Amino acid sequence: MRNPSEDNAVGATRPISRLICPRSVAVIGASADMAKTSGRPVAYLQKHGFTGAIYPVNPKADTIGGLRCYPGIGALPEAPDVAIVLLGAERALGAVRELAARGTAAAIVLASGYAEAGAEGQQRQRALLEAAGAMRLLGPNTIGLVNLTDRITLSASGALEADDLVPGGIAVVSQSGGILGSLLSRGAARGIGFSKLISTSNEADLDLADFIDHLADDEATRVIALYMEGVRDVARFRAAAAKAARAGKPLVVFKIGRSESGAQAAASHTGALAGADRMYDALFREVGAIRARDFSDLLDLPAALATGRRLEGRRVAILTSTGGAGTLVADSLGVAGFEAPPPDAATAETLRALQADGPSVLDRNPIDVTLAGLQPQLLRRALTALLDSPGYDAVVVIVGSSALAMPDLVADAIRDCLPGTAKPVLAYVSPHAPAVASLLNRRGVPAFSAPESCTVALQGLLARSAAVQHATADAGPLVRIDDLPAGSLDEAEAKSLFARFGVRGVRELKVADAQEAAQAARTLGEKVVLKILSRTVTHKTEVGGVAVAVPAVQVAQRVARMHDDVAAATGHAPEGYLVQEMVAGGTEMILGLHRDALGTALLVGMGGVTAELVGDTVLRMVPPGGALSRGEAAGMLRELKTWPLLDGYRGRPAADVDALVDAMVGFARMAGQLGARLETAEINPLFVLQKGQGVRAADGVAVLS
Amino acid sequence: MRNPSEDNAVGATRPISRLICPRSVAVIGASADMAKTSGRPVAYLQKHGFTGAIYPVNPKADTIGGLRCYPGIGALPEAPDVAIVLLGAERALGAVRELAARGTAAAIVLASGYAEAGAEGQQRQRALLEAAGAMRLLGPNTIGLVNLTDRITLSASGALEADDLVPGGIAVVSQSGGILGSLLSRGAARGIGFSKLISTSNEADLDLADFIDHLADDEATRVIALYMEGVRDVARFRAAAAKAARAGKPLVVFKIGRSESGAQAAASHTGALAGADRMYDALFREVGAIRARDFSDLLDLPAALATGRRLEGRRVAILTSTGGAGTLVADSLGVAGFEAPPPDAATAETLRALQADGPSVLDRNPIDVTLAGLQPQLLRRALTALLDSPGYDAVVVIVGSSALAMPDLVADAIRDCLPGTAKPVLAYVSPHAPAVASLLNRRGVPAFSAPESCTVALQGLLARSAAVQHATADAGPLVRIDDLPAGSLDEAEAKSLFARFGVRGVRELKVADAQEAAQAARTLGEKVVLKILSRTVTHKTEVGGVAVAVPAVQVAQRVARMHDDVAAATGHAPEGYLVQEMVAGGTEMILGLHRDALGTALLVGMGGVTAELVGDTVLRMVPPGGALSRGEAAGMLRELKTWPLLDGYRGRPAADVDALVDAMVGFARMAGQLGARLETAEINPLFVLQKGQGVRAADGVAVLS
Repeated sequence: MRNPSEDNAVGATRPISRLICPRSVAVIGASADMAKTSGRPVAYLQKHGFTGAIYPVNPKADTIGGLRCYPGIGALPEAPDVAIVLLGAERALGAVRELAARGTAAAIVLASGYAEAGAEGQQRQRALLEAAGAMRLLGPNTIGLVNLTDRITLSASGALEADDLVPGGIAVVSQSGGILGSLLSRGAARGIGFSKLISTSNEADLDLADFIDHLADDEATRVIALYMEGVRDVARFRAAAAKAARAGKPLVVFKIGRSESGAQAAASHTGALAGADRMYDALFREVGAIRARDFSDLLDLPAALATGRRLEGRRVAILTSTGGAGTLVADSLGVAGFEAPPPDAATAETLRALQADGPSVLDRNPIDVTLAGLQPQLLRRALTALLDSPGYDAVVVIVGSSALAMPDLVADAIRDCLPGTAKPVLAYVSPHAPAVASLLNRRGVPAFSAPESCTVALQGLLARSAAVQHATADAGPLVRIDDLPAGSLDEAEAKSLFARFGVRGVRELKVADAQEAAQAARTLGEKVVLKILSRTVTHKTEVGGVAVAVPAVQVAQRVARMHDDVAAATGHAPEGYLVQEMVAGGTEMILGLHRDALGTALLVGMGGVTAELVGDTVLRMVPPGGALSRGEAAGMLRELKTWPLLDGYRGRPAADVDALVDAMVGFARMAGQLGARLETAEINPLFVLQKGQGVRAADGVAVLS
Repeated sequence: MRNPSEDNAVGATRPISRLICPRSVAVIGASADMAKTSGRPVAYLQKHGFTGAIYPVNPKADTIGGLRCYPGIGALPEAPDVAIVLLGAERALGAVRELAARGTAAAIVLASGYAEAGAEGQQRQRALLEAAGAMRLLGPNTIGLVNLTDRITLSASGALEADDLVPGGIAVVSQSGGILGSLLSRGAARGIGFSKLISTSNEADLDLADFIDHLADDEATRVIALYMEGVRDVARFRAAAAKAARAGKPLVVFKIGRSESGAQAAASHTGALAGADRMYDALFREVGAIRARDFSDLLDLPAALATGRRLEGRRVAILTSTGGAGTLVADSLGVAGFEAPPPDAATAETLRALQADGPSVLDRNPIDVTLAGLQPQLLRRALTALLDSPGYDAVVVIVGSSALAMPDLVADAIRDCLPGTAKPVLAYVSPHAPAVASLLNRRGVPAFSAPESCTVALQGLLARSAAVQHATADAGPLVRIDDLPAGSLDEAEAKSLFARFGVRGVRELKVADAQEAAQAARTLGEKVVLKILSRTVTHKTEVGGVAVAVPAVQVAQRVARMHDDVAAATGHAPEGYLVQEMVAGGTEMILGLHRDALGTALLVGMGGVTAELVGDTVLRMVPPGGALSRGEAAGMLRELKTWPLLDGYRGRPAADVDALVDAMVGFARMAGQLGARLETAEINPLFVLQKGQGVRAADGVAVLS
């Protein structure tokens, strides 16, 4: 990866543009044998209609595919825009060096045996990048790229055997070459149109962010689909995603590595609750990317989003001419919280007038117009009536087996209704009918063969319409933090840090021994909490270092016992003790910050021992500078399943949500001001008292660097 | 629906057998015009090779499909085994009456406009059933049935246009005709083999249970797939499912109506938590049926189960020749709790020996044998090595684009490995390659095009292997219950009922007024709980009818206030009061019984206000007679996310799980003995004290009929 400004400065002829839309392509190690991978790129370029210059390079052949073959890179008549390097890793290094010396804009290296193959391979990859010098590199270990907008195929992917590749608005950037081929061939079979497909694979140089940045400017691209194994440079990914958002181009991401999240260990609860994969969720939410859950969603969501239509509500009309399939779609939509209300009176009247001899049961949805399946004109009118109805935000048309006999008429009938409406129109194809689905997709009607895909597509459209508007917030006044030591703070230090950002702790006194503890307890109420003070013990309870509800009169005795218990368990006497007031009532929450390579996230959830069992927590990336808006913080709380516990559920007194929001905003500010110094911070439990009485941090952990 | 014994008594020539495997078929209202639905059945019978007699009946035609056409039912040369009635609802009635009179074994009625179309249609359906007399009826509103084992198609489904229908081991029974067609055409395209497909639709007579019962005896059928909208007769469904289980034929069910569950209202928490759809889950679990979550699972699961192979563990080898796709499958498996461990040393050695010049990175799984994708012999050897390894329970083979050039060789190579192992072998087809997937399925290798489908298939195989062994349990001694009144019991009555089944309540005294309350409180400790006694007030808290932690000395005063509050809120003075001991410590649980049309379910979960917010509950059908085994009860508890709270989590004292299990077993016995009298029963909260100290029911609700 290099500084992107390097690239942007060159303007229209910048290397990435030349890589994606070259006028000339050299194919190093081309073969005349189509049975070999090295035989494919030249053949595919020709087959799919590349109009620029193709320079096969192979010392052992005179011509390949009817083209003059060059014995070496030095013999090429010009510096090509792009070179596809088909040589093995050993010979690729020299070729890349020669290509760079000739002034080639970019090279695509297919060989494997680099960073994916252990330490030796990593060394080989560093050497390759060095050899490339100012020339940009795609790969190594890539299957190349396919520019369907301009019919330029710079790839050996077997998916290019297909004849019917459809240009369209969906760009794919994949960290796996095989997945690129899979998406291309599956999309082609479904009539889904692509603009560019790029396999970045090892990303020695060009990575996901480079291509997102480029595609944000690409006129043909309306949606960007990403197959991601991980982000290499979060800052550049954020910047590129922001650029795509400004350009109105949604990102859809399928990210693998979900199952590793369970194995993530971390020092604090927050870390464990955050998990690597949840951090990606938070990152995607922050940048407005939609996460594909199933692999098929990575085509289904872009197919729906590429229409550019917005879904403004959850009311869906299901127009069907076959009973079961409509129910199937309605049920799947219902599980996801969509509604399928019956038609309003005027719409029902219009539908009734369409088929005088029909069953006329129009008080329900799915709307069964049996005859429409057989009469495209009727289908057109019924669909128009539903799209015109103010009672619906979208229509799903169920395509039954009757369409098999006249796919064009059905597809055209649906297509004809599109110009008259801005509402999304999707199709569910019930029988096995790939030709019908393909026709519909080519006509601009996203067509799906799984009922759940219709639901996912509508969810994607809704997410797009409800795209998070980050309210601008003030990061607040600067707080003095330069006096803080590195490492783990003890509980009192941690809470005193949190207090600087407005998060109030329980009343407490730091004491050295049993005598002082007894004295302190007298000022803190009838019963108190005793804890050891320690920078090293993470789980104080487990070493006998916590006692709750200790009557004030027994404090001295209890501290003495705690001293002995902890000494026995840890081999050290406690560094000191905290005597704390008992908090009566209130709702126990957990509030935490967790930092990893993706950034710092704020976590809020139910506190206490049930927290990690039930896992009712919400995570968000802390905005730049720590400026979390109160609205965003309040929104996080409302996502909790247990939110009603704070909101006066079943006659409980309402909790001081304002104060909890203040604490969240304060924690985010603290993250902003501490920046990379903060590793983790956590309050568990944070007692949220009744409205007007604020919050009390009853425990505190902070680790700084 | 009629008594099945009626049918069974007839032996080999019983009507259902004659319906599914007829020697003669009359087609009433047959048409010579294939563009009409009524033109299809005769044509399909001929096309798919029916060898029996076909009698088209149509007064306006002489011949149809080269066959002699009869003017009416009376003119038929014999009583047919089956008649397919293609007439509209008006004329179908007479035809059914005539067919019955002729002695036809069974009629299939396609017309719609019956029970699905309002009150008038319901009346029409009753008349139709009456007209059928002793003749069995399939439908009305059905698309018919398809017997692929014997190549007999008694259906107008457009899916029968396909030429390549594959006979096989999967039976389908569907309550929707359209879905039957969808499954048949999708299965055919994938090379998935069916035995029988039956659309029961309106089920005026024959229903799901009849066909499950029949298919349990059907030699060709290995798995039964059900598309279900609802069970009409639970007892017969249970019996049929049990018969299938005894025959070793798994049931896979896709049940719609999941989204309605949210709308279910019920008097108690248990009812709301149970929900109609969760009751189906419990029913399916009880009968050992596997529930398909996504519609595609309804083919994917049977495809895997039809192999008859068992999965004995969670360790899966993923053999791939294309990087990304292997990762995709591994990730999906990982999310579901499967493991993909690296090969053991001996297996790695065998693999290494296979390809001397390969990348030899064999310390990981997916196991990437790049060359195997191109050399079937290598694929065969690598697959055999993995299947022979004691470290794996199953293998998923990733089929990449290299297989496109030689699908037969790849499919044969995998097929050849099957006889040597009992382990499941699945295939994931990465590119769009329906021909390859179809070949694999036909060769007995379940092949999937979604990584999540591989996971679902393996989960199904695991569920099958771990099929619930219902431990026999004793329903316990009879308890006197004939003295119980009908309707809602008050809290004291409810708890006294529960106590008869061994569930101990908190110490409490029933009192009439403030004076008695104060006296009672003195015997129950420093602080007490006060509650009104009422058979009508469901939510006592909301009318001011509960006070906790009332100091004994303030009881009289507090009761007086409660009297006024409740009178103001409800318009009635309380019927009396309960004074209860305060329970210190313990874990709050909810224990309940809920009865609906499917049976009585036992529900256990976290108690208190968080119960319905977090929804951490487990539901099971109460076994016949109420004989819940202690093992089953303990298993329910271990399914709770919050189970660790009972199990000494983080140094908490372990709870008296034995006593909680006793309470569950007692509740189940109570359900068994009360039978249909019990509508709902609930304890919330049920305090589970420390080990050895038992449980205490702190509240109780029971509604009897």
